[in-house]
Amino acid sequence: MTIVRLEAKRLTPESFAPFGQVVEIADHAPVMINEGNTERFDSLGHVECTGVNGKAVINIFRAQPRVLPMRITMVERHPFGSQSFQPLSGESYLVLVADAVEQPSPEQLHLFISSPDQGVNYKANTWHHPLLALNKVCDFLVVDRKGEGDNCEEYFFCDQIEIIIDAVPSEEA
Amino acid sequence: MTIVRLEAKRLTPESFAPFGQVVEIADHAPVMINEGNTERFDSLGHVECTGVNGKAVINIFRAQPRVLPMRITMVERHPFGSQSFQPLSGESYLVLVADAVEQPSPEQLHLFISSPDQGVNYKANTWHHPLLALNKVCDFLVVDRKGEGDNCEEYFFCDQIEIIIDAVPSEEA
Repeated sequence: MTIVRLEAKRLTPESFAPFGQVVEIADHAPVMINEGNTERFDSLGHVECTGVNGKAVINIFRAQPRVLPMRITMVERHPFGSQSFQPLSGESYLVLVADAVEQPSPEQLHLFISSPDQGVNYKANTWHHPLLALNKVCDFLVVDRKGEGDNCEEYFFCDQIEIIIDAVPSEEA
Repeated sequence: MTIVRLEAKRLTPESFAPFGQVVEIADHAPVMINEGNTERFDSLGHVECTGVNGKAVINIFRAQPRVLPMRITMVERHPFGSQSFQPLSGESYLVLVADAVEQPSPEQLHLFISSPDQGVNYKANTWHHPLLALNKVCDFLVVDRKGEGDNCEEYFFCDQIEIIIDAVPSEEA
């Protein structure tokens, strides 16, 4: 049995760029609207929506917190649309993605830890793990695609490799 | 000078239905996903996106709190797309919409007060007032449409009518 331990890095727009967008104000410059009453931080995330009768929808996901250490057995991807997650519960969460190959190896996984006000928007067809909430039950606003066709592919890692997420340092989670 | 005072009603899916969707968990039944780790409250909001090169984008709006009483002078609408607002700052806010006529009268305005976890998604071409945050500077996740064409129409009420939002009862805001 081979054991691979994943280390979480701080989520940044640069490190996440191959996989999608980080949806946060950060150092973006706003456009002033509504007679100066509102700053618009524009187009932080790009909604992709293709395939037969594809439409974007807004959902809420309520996620149970994960117990670490945990074993990672699979990732999934959505060929016909992006999928965004915006935290609504004031907690950090883990973001696990993989390089854009057909069968990612454990070395092609990338683990990030968010801040409580960072959302992510996965580009269409980006391998990612299902929600990895921490600390408590957490709600997320989710924008993704509904429509015809099989929009969810799963990839399961070889049984002989144990991929582990250890506890996240407490100052980060 | 005629004075019209608007009274805020509690935001509910039923009362808001002519104008769009209330994006909240409320009593919706979830679909279990992610091997039982996540409840998906599906398609709470429907993203509309038409017109030349229309694409949906995810933005953050940072709104100054309004000082009540305030005078309402206009509403706006977006013919080519829906526009959703999800509160990220844990505060209630006001939602002011108007009936689907070309030139709404003050009697055709409808004022709602949200709870801190209710989002709204305005249907395309629904008259609404720009963001009416309360109490403090508030961030909202906004999903709307970018693309070609004039996607913002404004309607200004007659100067001779003073439309006023009075203070919202403290137990509601």
